[in-house]
Amino acid sequence: MSTIALRPIGRVESRLTDPAKAPKQADEGAPEALLVIEPDFAAGLEGLKAGDEIILMTWLDRAQRDILVNHPRSDKSRPVAGVFTTRSPHRPNPIGLHQVTIADIDGPRVRVRSLEALDGTPILDIKGLLNPDIEQR
Amino acid sequence: MSTIALRPIGRVESRLTDPAKAPKQADEGAPEALLVIEPDFAAGLEGLKAGDEIILMTWLDRAQRDILVNHPRSDKSRPVAGVFTTRSPHRPNPIGLHQVTIADIDGPRVRVRSLEALDGTPILDIKGLLNPDIEQR
Repeated sequence: MSTIALRPIGRVESRLTDPAKAPKQADEGAPEALLVIEPDFAAGLEGLKAGDEIILMTWLDRAQRDILVNHPRSDKSRPVAGVFTTRSPHRPNPIGLHQVTIADIDGPRVRVRSLEALDGTPILDIKGLLNPDIEQR
Repeated sequence: MSTIALRPIGRVESRLTDPAKAPKQADEGAPEALLVIEPDFAAGLEGLKAGDEIILMTWLDRAQRDILVNHPRSDKSRPVAGVFTTRSPHRPNPIGLHQVTIADIDGPRVRVRSLEALDGTPILDIKGLLNPDIEQR
């Protein structure tokens, strides 16, 4: 099949720089981070505000794309599993999926709580949550 | 920023072919569908079974990518909102996000319940759910 071209809408700024030290999930001690959206895309943020929960999709640019089975959570004592049963970053199309809360928003700069993505990670998309309060948007 | 190249891991087979008639969300009457995974990627399915809930990411290839604000749910009586506050398919990187249950799996053919994606939609990724039962995988 032919390839698909994505253009990042922004980048993550974070104090996390070392993949080996980064938490695997947001609830494992991830720090605040800043989503810096490109000027071309900033109009798409209209209506977001502090306190909103959002779905963030990132491109895990330091992941390996040629892995189809691995040891869950890099724990060699666990049996290998297909990557499509796991949340491993290593997979053919390493799209990161994160649910985060907006702490603060200043134009194209969106500060979020507890994000496990590394500094410099490209941002692909932001979506509203599917929940009764906002699914009608 | 430079572009990112994705390679679909498979395609959706569905009786939904007309975007205008497709349900907007899975709980709005979406039919069963088949995820047909390419042979090169089928090893990544190892361990998935009927009854599992999964996160499915698709490429919404019939969406418009040059839209940053729109009327939520295509309802012109609603005020426009930034696409990053919504679940509209129309957005710069139209990645579809679906939570589906596996009805049946036969090698690289995964039948799922209630999927609102159109026939032929490229599949980008499948992930395990983040929940207490499987997050340790």
